[in-house]
Amino acid sequence: MNNVMKEMDRLDNLLPQWVEKSRPESAHGRVATYIPELSKAEWDLLGISVLNADGRYSEAGDTAFSFTLQSISKVFTLILALMDHGEEAVFSKVGKEPTGDNFNSMMKLELIQPAIPFNPLINAGAIVISSLIKGNSVEQKSERILQFFRELAGNDRLVIDHKVYRSERETGHLNRSMAYFLLDKGILEGNVEDVLDVYFRHCSIQVETADLARMALVLAYNGLDPLTGKQLIPRRFVQIAKTFMITCGMYNGSGEFAIGAGMPAKSGVSGGILTFVPGRLGIGVVGPSLNAKGNSIAGVHLIERLSREFDWSMF
Amino acid sequence: MNNVMKEMDRLDNLLPQWVEKSRPESAHGRVATYIPELSKAEWDLLGISVLNADGRYSEAGDTAFSFTLQSISKVFTLILALMDHGEEAVFSKVGKEPTGDNFNSMMKLELIQPAIPFNPLINAGAIVISSLIKGNSVEQKSERILQFFRELAGNDRLVIDHKVYRSERETGHLNRSMAYFLLDKGILEGNVEDVLDVYFRHCSIQVETADLARMALVLAYNGLDPLTGKQLIPRRFVQIAKTFMITCGMYNGSGEFAIGAGMPAKSGVSGGILTFVPGRLGIGVVGPSLNAKGNSIAGVHLIERLSREFDWSMF
Amino acid sequence: MNNVMKEMDRLDNLLPQWVEKSRPESAHGRVATYIPELSKAEWDLLGISVLNADGRYSEAGDTAFSFTLQSISKVFTLILALMDHGEEAVFSKVGKEPTGDNFNSMMKLELIQPAIPFNPLINAGAIVISSLIKGNSVEQKSERILQFFRELAGNDRLVIDHKVYRSERETGHLNRSMAYFLLDKGILEGNVEDVLDVYFRHCSIQVETADLARMALVLAYNGLDPLTGKQLIPRRFVQIAKTFMITCGMYNGSGEFAIGAGMPAKSGVSGGILTFVPGRLGIGVVGPSLNAKGNSIAGVHLIERLSREFDWSMF
Amino acid sequence: MNNVMKEMDRLDNLLPQWVEKSRPESAHGRVATYIPELSKAEWDLLGISVLNADGRYSEAGDTAFSFTLQSISKVFTLILALMDHGEEAVFSKVGKEPTGDNFNSMMKLELIQPAIPFNPLINAGAIVISSLIKGNSVEQKSERILQFFRELAGNDRLVIDHKVYRSERETGHLNRSMAYFLLDKGILEGNVEDVLDVYFRHCSIQVETADLARMALVLAYNGLDPLTGKQLIPRRFVQIAKTFMITCGMYNGSGEFAIGAGMPAKSGVSGGILTFVPGRLGIGVVGPSLNAKGNSIAGVHLIERLSREFDWSMF
Repeated sequence: MNNVMKEMDRLDNLLPQWVEKSRPESAHGRVATYIPELSKAEWDLLGISVLNADGRYSEAGDTAFSFTLQSISKVFTLILALMDHGEEAVFSKVGKEPTGDNFNSMMKLELIQPAIPFNPLINAGAIVISSLIKGNSVEQKSERILQFFRELAGNDRLVIDHKVYRSERETGHLNRSMAYFLLDKGILEGNVEDVLDVYFRHCSIQVETADLARMALVLAYNGLDPLTGKQLIPRRFVQIAKTFMITCGMYNGSGEFAIGAGMPAKSGVSGGILTFVPGRLGIGVVGPSLNAKGNSIAGVHLIERLSREFDWSMF
Repeated sequence: MNNVMKEMDRLDNLLPQWVEKSRPESAHGRVATYIPELSKAEWDLLGISVLNADGRYSEAGDTAFSFTLQSISKVFTLILALMDHGEEAVFSKVGKEPTGDNFNSMMKLELIQPAIPFNPLINAGAIVISSLIKGNSVEQKSERILQFFRELAGNDRLVIDHKVYRSERETGHLNRSMAYFLLDKGILEGNVEDVLDVYFRHCSIQVETADLARMALVLAYNGLDPLTGKQLIPRRFVQIAKTFMITCGMYNGSGEFAIGAGMPAKSGVSGGILTFVPGRLGIGVVGPSLNAKGNSIAGVHLIERLSREFDWSMF
Repeated sequence: MNNVMKEMDRLDNLLPQWVEKSRPESAHGRVATYIPELSKAEWDLLGISVLNADGRYSEAGDTAFSFTLQSISKVFTLILALMDHGEEAVFSKVGKEPTGDNFNSMMKLELIQPAIPFNPLINAGAIVISSLIKGNSVEQKSERILQFFRELAGNDRLVIDHKVYRSERETGHLNRSMAYFLLDKGILEGNVEDVLDVYFRHCSIQVETADLARMALVLAYNGLDPLTGKQLIPRRFVQIAKTFMITCGMYNGSGEFAIGAGMPAKSGVSGGILTFVPGRLGIGVVGPSLNAKGNSIAGVHLIERLSREFDWSMF
Repeated sequence: MNNVMKEMDRLDNLLPQWVEKSRPESAHGRVATYIPELSKAEWDLLGISVLNADGRYSEAGDTAFSFTLQSISKVFTLILALMDHGEEAVFSKVGKEPTGDNFNSMMKLELIQPAIPFNPLINAGAIVISSLIKGNSVEQKSERILQFFRELAGNDRLVIDHKVYRSERETGHLNRSMAYFLLDKGILEGNVEDVLDVYFRHCSIQVETADLARMALVLAYNGLDPLTGKQLIPRRFVQIAKTFMITCGMYNGSGEFAIGAGMPAKSGVSGGILTFVPGRLGIGVVGPSLNAKGNSIAGVHLIERLSREFDWSMF
């Protein structure tokens, strides 16, 4: 029995009790309310799925809970845009630097020269990325994104949660504001509502923690899906995504998470976190109660503890 | 012959030569290009109309040039909103402070608590004001504004310049961005495109310098039109408008203009300036070439010189 | 009996009761604590002195309370610097625009090009002004300022409150921070501690409301002391000071005060307010409890009420 | 011959020509001038030292050039402060987040709550770290730092370059400004000039690229000096330092460098870069001509190329 196998056995043992130890952290956070539909989630849910290259899962807690990807989707639309246009074209439209500001801050947009969004994982940057996805229509672009996500998750049943999508579209005025700002600056092209439609749709794709773990596993193996043997993403684009996940994957709590857990990760306001151990494991977590930085409070607690115990930090 | 009469005689004498002395200043400025339709104006135009309470005009230069009110309209929509809702309601939606920032800066919107626009003369504030004009439809609101402006200008032929209006609507994405930001914060209500439509229309009302002088004369007489004897605006609302014209009527060049000329004034990016000598004169100026702050460069030069010569400063 | 005389009689009648009506406002504010020595003032003091050109005083409340000028001094050091160097030299070092920010904000310093302080009444600007006062030493400069203030107040007994001065010098690290920032940018020259020493000293000059009223009267009469017949300040420099008092004399509550009272004014964190009715009256007020903008809360209440009653607004 | 040996042989072969290929990049950058003494460096110098755990060096270019550590020292004073006080105490005084702003920006200081510097590698944070070094006097603290650096570099002859130190102390007004700001906010304690003295001294320690390579090697081996077998730094503190080097080691070009090279690194305005390949190599580079972000322009070019060729990225 090799080390990785032993790790999975230990996880099977530890995860149930550790989930219960992290779950009470949720009481110190708050479920997101800015998208009305999200506010309905039960605040004390917590679930985790860990998947290795043999296809073996170790899971605990509320893994049957369905939630939307939200910002987690931004990692994969970035990758799709890179696959559609290449590195140079994409980074003429978004930068590579972390910001230290809130994910939805507009202040930064006014201060940099050239006025491109700091990076592809803040809202402004992710909206620009949505505008770069190839396709002749909103539907075609959204369909391409959905198919790509299904392939990564190895799950043909991934669909858009239309209630959440409509809720975002109806209330996403800050994103609309950013999009018009970017249009004014010539960074965004085309019809703003169409771009936002693509954006809101991919944020609203519904998953479970097992889907996150599978998508993460592909990143952990540099774009190769170890369960099918297919290279789904060129290695260089995984490298880029992984770097952004370290420097700005957890909003303006990224630095703290890098020091605490040291794992590439991306969180969403629905409470999901996708993270992985390079070359070993894909991990999906969900816990809707968020800390002040917008990350799942119990999820962060659980991952940091696991990272210390299993020495998962890249650093 | 009283002093005011003598002043008009001296103006008749001086204005033609002073206009020619200020006109070359235009070479140091630039015609606005951000609304494409405005960029077509001839850069070295300069005209001035001065009107006293006897209805006597003193004029010089390009007074036959038609231009759109742009930001000058904001003074009068503010007054109309005050007449529609009263002081308290209006100032729950916009503040009373100058900003020091560009007229179209969004940065400030993020920094104040509560997040209301600093004042009704910056774009964000003026858009909020547009949303407060009473009326059941865009058309009705715009019609009310137009009628009010016609009455103030004593000119039934004032109309919207539809080319400019369409140009603003098509390219006004920064205003759109601000409007959605304000909608997100709950400061703006209703349909954003409708509010912007009202806003773009009143910015696009076409005038000549004589119209500005007549509108200014009503302010100079505290809301009374001395030529008809009608009180068109309650005095308190003129007082409020006059104060804003001193503290923030000339964008972020307001402080400098207050020290240089000391007269309540409002400028627009079309090159117009409306100003007045309280209790004496209404003045309209136009010169499309703008200085770095967005004010008519030759117009400011001319008014500051006249103010020094005739001791028109309020200070 | 002329109108002004009648005004003084009415003031004699009204002031005592109006002071008592405004005094309870102090409960909604807070005495400044950032200079430890200031925090010792009794929070519910309120006093007012009004002085006319005949030398007649109308007073009420705690007029025997001694307090330090603090920011009020900035109006007069600006005037002295103008008298020392002229308009052009002074305004190459400080700007003319209101800011909308806190008086001690440093943020603005980083954003403008050229990086000069926005105006001479914010701390950064006033420190630059202190560096411009002529004199061979800190002592000589401070002595010149004190003599100038004594002459304006017609009071040879004006002195520096050394306890407050030492308190400011020991705790004025934010001002020190600004001064070094300005030194780095080449706006401030010379020894920083010396410049700050001049600054802290003039902020610490002790006055009573009657002194403020007398200093204000000189401004009300365009630089002429009507009680001695001496022209103490060239009229142009009073005009400049008056303009700044309207646009930024009351910190970032200046716009609101201009609309509420419409009088040139300058406040200090000790609770003093110097204001005047041009051509008529000099006014000094003190009330140590401050509103959120840093102005005497009861003092503002009292002045706004008087302005409405007596129609003192310039607007 | 193992892989690492082969790598060293390949480096011996490639480095001389690659240094010459990167050297011309210096023409597109500028030598730092803000510390007058630094501006004297020759702009087209470029040198590199690579060291492995067997003590074998591979070097090319201007490795005999002596330069000061500048910001590179901040990594090691952070480590020393962590060894002096532990994680919790240190991170109550500085944050863990990258900023996206210039290294010497003060703007951020005003915007965060609590107002602690974003991270220990920006100037404000590094000044706070300097204040935490244990010792009874400036001299004792500086001596402890110097001894620690000597041990890490395995070089007893490391000294402070007094010309640079004096130059920094005389012109470091922006750092002085920050220090007083931090003192005002209660983040910095003690005598500001003393703290700055400690800071300026450790920035002025003189090294050559071989010293950087040796110091880097200790980090590459998680705190163990592989040449002596001594554990000089606890592994956890190396982990923290390494994380900061990835997220903010290259000023606001850190994100770009992480994507381009993917190696933990710290640069200084003298043109030095310390970087390493975890578990394998310590690397020191110097090239005084800086890019717009303040990093050695030829140095970055050289390291990115080497990283691609040898697949050194952590990502």
